[in-house]
Amino acid sequence: MTDFTLSVTVEAPYDATLTRVRELLADAGFGVLTEIDVEATLQAKLGVEVAPQRILGACRPQLAHRALQVDQRVATMLPCNVVIAADGDLRTRVEVFDPAVMTSFSDADELAEVATDARERLTGMITSLTEDVEEADAARA
Amino acid sequence: MTDFTLSVTVEAPYDATLTRVRELLADAGFGVLTEIDVEATLQAKLGVEVAPQRILGACRPQLAHRALQVDQRVATMLPCNVVIAADGDLRTRVEVFDPAVMTSFSDADELAEVATDARERLTGMITSLTEDVEEADAARA
Repeated sequence: MTDFTLSVTVEAPYDATLTRVRELLADAGFGVLTEIDVEATLQAKLGVEVAPQRILGACRPQLAHRALQVDQRVATMLPCNVVIAADGDLRTRVEVFDPAVMTSFSDADELAEVATDARERLTGMITSLTEDVEEADAARA
Repeated sequence: MTDFTLSVTVEAPYDATLTRVRELLADAGFGVLTEIDVEATLQAKLGVEVAPQRILGACRPQLAHRALQVDQRVATMLPCNVVIAADGDLRTRVEVFDPAVMTSFSDADELAEVATDARERLTGMITSLTEDVEEADAARA
């Protein structure tokens, strides 16, 4: 198993985490271009029950544009998927496709810069999610 | 540069190719869950002009469900992106994220089966696109 995601599981319910992820993505300069409700889709198409899960397609247009100018194949990895998945009622996993994977397919320096920029923003989002929960814990203590 | 896409450039205009790709994806058992008009998005967000390009998020729910049961991280690679990009007025590139990339991140046999199934369907779509153009050429000859 190779790591290809950035991931954190927070001690917070699904709905609250989904709202917070949207706020943090906006703060980090990402728009959400697509959204898939995995639970509803699998229920509708296959009649199966899975835990609440959404895939947000996050895009920072400046970075997307730069990356596409370097290597048009990058379009097949856009937008950057941010997955929010319930893990029981009180815990939620947030998992992001690691932009660093792009650099494993190409040696272009400019693409590496774009990937590093995107990765830092997304890592910051994950750190903020963790800090939220720590602050909530501290407030309760 | 490592290959991570399946790609073909056809001698057909963008709009006709976009329509044909939608038909062929449906024939191959894929629904389109998301759609990004890259040209319109970059125009709206950055004021830059790029050639017509769309990213269709294709999903075969049966395969997605199986893959997610094996490895929940796969959600960050769903749906499978199918890019349609104008290459001048008369040629269009169709490029798909290669599902085989999934197997480079995981050794799970079931995931390999899912990736192979998806890859065969998408390769079939690309072959059909090429045959369309050959048939049109033959009809003109």
